Amino acid sequence: MKVKVTRKEHFNAAHRLFNPAWSDEKNNEVFGKCNNPHFHGHNYELEVSLVGDPDPDTGYLFDMKKLSDLVRQHVIKEFDHKNLNLDTVYFKNLNPTAENIAIVIWRILRQHIDSKYELKIKLYETERNCVEYPAH
Amino acid sequence: MKVKVTRKEHFNAAHRLFNPAWSDEKNNEVFGKCNNPHFHGHNYELEVSLVGDPDPDTGYLFDMKKLSDLVRQHVIKEFDHKNLNLDTVYFKNLNPTAENIAIVIWRILRQHIDSKYELKIKLYETERNCVEYPAH
Amino acid sequence: MKVKVTRKEHFNAAHRLFNPAWSDEKNNEVFGKCNNPHFHGHNYELEVSLVGDPDPDTGYLFDMKKLSDLVRQHVIKEFDHKNLNLDTVYFKNLNPTAENIAIVIWRILRQHIDSKYELKIKLYETERNCVEYPAH
Amino acid sequence: MKVKVTRKEHFNAAHRLFNPAWSDEKNNEVFGKCNNPHFHGHNYELEVSLVGDPDPDTGYLFDMKKLSDLVRQHVIKEFDHKNLNLDTVYFKNLNPTAENIAIVIWRILRQHIDSKYELKIKLYETERNCVEYPAH
Amino acid sequence: MKVKVTRKEHFNAAHRLFNPAWSDEKNNEVFGKCNNPHFHGHNYELEVSLVGDPDPDTGYLFDMKKLSDLVRQHVIKEFDHKNLNLDTVYFKNLNPTAENIAIVIWRILRQHIDSKYELKIKLYETERNCVEYPAH
Amino acid sequence: MKVKVTRKEHFNAAHRLFNPAWSDEKNNEVFGKCNNPHFHGHNYELEVSLVGDPDPDTGYLFDMKKLSDLVRQHVIKEFDHKNLNLDTVYFKNLNPTAENIAIVIWRILRQHIDSKYELKIKLYETERNCVEYPAH
Repeated sequence: MKVKVTRKEHFNAAHRLFNPAWSDEKNNEVFGKCNNPHFHGHNYELEVSLVGDPDPDTGYLFDMKKLSDLVRQHVIKEFDHKNLNLDTVYFKNLNPTAENIAIVIWRILRQHIDSKYELKIKLYETERNCVEYPAH
Repeated sequence: MKVKVTRKEHFNAAHRLFNPAWSDEKNNEVFGKCNNPHFHGHNYELEVSLVGDPDPDTGYLFDMKKLSDLVRQHVIKEFDHKNLNLDTVYFKNLNPTAENIAIVIWRILRQHIDSKYELKIKLYETERNCVEYPAH
Repeated sequence: MKVKVTRKEHFNAAHRLFNPAWSDEKNNEVFGKCNNPHFHGHNYELEVSLVGDPDPDTGYLFDMKKLSDLVRQHVIKEFDHKNLNLDTVYFKNLNPTAENIAIVIWRILRQHIDSKYELKIKLYETERNCVEYPAH
Repeated sequence: MKVKVTRKEHFNAAHRLFNPAWSDEKNNEVFGKCNNPHFHGHNYELEVSLVGDPDPDTGYLFDMKKLSDLVRQHVIKEFDHKNLNLDTVYFKNLNPTAENIAIVIWRILRQHIDSKYELKIKLYETERNCVEYPAH
Repeated sequence: MKVKVTRKEHFNAAHRLFNPAWSDEKNNEVFGKCNNPHFHGHNYELEVSLVGDPDPDTGYLFDMKKLSDLVRQHVIKEFDHKNLNLDTVYFKNLNPTAENIAIVIWRILRQHIDSKYELKIKLYETERNCVEYPAH
Repeated sequence: MKVKVTRKEHFNAAHRLFNPAWSDEKNNEVFGKCNNPHFHGHNYELEVSLVGDPDPDTGYLFDMKKLSDLVRQHVIKEFDHKNLNLDTVYFKNLNPTAENIAIVIWRILRQHIDSKYELKIKLYETERNCVEYPAH
């Protein structure tokens, strides 16, 4: 049986939801208030989980300090106090929904975490809305 | 890999736990304080999760506003500020334990959510007790 | 300068809000869903605070274990898993609004706490509604 | 002794902190990441408190449903999913720090709440930063 | 489809992380501040979950009061207000990382829970770090 | 009317409560489990509040980043992952109750915060126990 460890970090960002291929009417109909062209924003709470076998010498699955450092270096530094649409390379052509932000974070971190660990992302956009990737 | 989205809603309700086929002694022995014939109550926190593939045009798995509306229309309106035993059709012959409330909510919502989405319910009866259905 | 210590306890109860001197129409107009004659309920979170000078021998203002025992004996035992309107002596002729419940709890505990301590009550009826007595 | 009641609401917004009378260097030095010209954002949690005497007929200090409606109509509708700098009249010439947002909300609501009630605002910009106005 | 129920309990304990086979330098390098020979401590939040089929007579998967009693008797009494390294038999030769504490708690409780129920442990060491066993 | 700003930080520490002038019996009677000679521990959540007038040029009462830095440098660095009794100068001859820890933190920070600001400390020892200094 495997163990799962989870580290929680956070970032604050502005974003706007819209599809540039659609008319303003269609964007307003689908995205409503989230389509504000002047942007709105959130406090994003990010949970990064790793699944694997603890190291018998340390009793750690993964050093939480090192996981925190990795997430801060590769995710928080990129997204915190940023406009996701304008200030990051990831959402130039991708709508920054919570679903897409979670998938992007997974892809970023997957490159920096040994493949022997399963990687999971949970992202709270508000206290009442969250997304997980992968789902299982 | 699939994505999971979760929306949290809440309702406040009164209930009483008992089995009408049993004696008062047996009901008191099994259900203790929860068997109070004058009822007691809870703030129920309800998490509704859907699993599936995001729509490439919107980046949404499911519009959280629409999910919130569905849950409010079909669950919250039925249960909020109600006596679960006396005011709802669901618990006339079913003991309103957290387990049964979660299963009932799953069955109600399953009819209103496209079958391409997996549906999961998590229900907090108190901050320290919760139930999930299905478990996996 | 004084110190304040706070202990949090909780209870679950059913209640109904109404004024027996009023017509059903008036009660529905004023109390809405809270006037359900079959009752509804809440998880009440109760914070009891004492203000005073710490004892130099112990460094305690008041032993939190003893404060917890006092609150459980005189408040929680009376209200937990009860119907506030039907099962308690306090709300036979008093509407069990959060305001009145907080005042009743203050009056109960005031008899069991040395008058050298200032006593304050904060009562959460839901995560989004709470009451404090006294206000200052 | 008075009673205090508190209602919690929330809104999501984008903002930028800067003083237009200052150079870019000075703004960066003072406001750091919060000075991003493309904006960033937050989930603001807003607690509105009233202090006064409960009505003996209702047991309410103030109907929480009516307080919620007032806050949603006059504050949430103005600020939710908005860019505080660009989309509101309040911060055209006022830096939208948490301090100033709390003072603005107090001034808006003070016009709609009977002066017999003391009014207090608590605003969380993040889980770890909050502001209260007035302080006492 | 199965149901999952979860009960949350807590305990406060001191611990020190180190490997007695290693030099002080190596222990400091790997465990940093957690290697303080005078110990540090945490409020541990423990979630115990059972998966199975509800009893049709009660509507319970497992009586939460009985689950709470089992956890308090076999886990909380052993660990609460203890030094995990010095006061328990479990960590004489096992490093009390969150991973190992979760596995030890699972092994303790597995002996007292009927094998027809799947058993899962989630342990928060801080609000930002937690461990689950088994992971799936 | 003044504004209050609050910054939340945290630290993890071990401690033991006892009075060296008392017998073991008396210490056990008064401090119970908290008198464990091998120590136990907590996650302490610390809220530091300042009261004063916002600066008209910045809209800040006090830069939250600078307040966080002050608290981390003078409090967190001293207490985090420490044994309060053995590793700090403050509790060599002072019982590290939550009351005394809050007073010590107030005295430390008072030296680093301009006297034009009122300073207040709130310290959570557990989710259910907290202390404030000064009380008013």
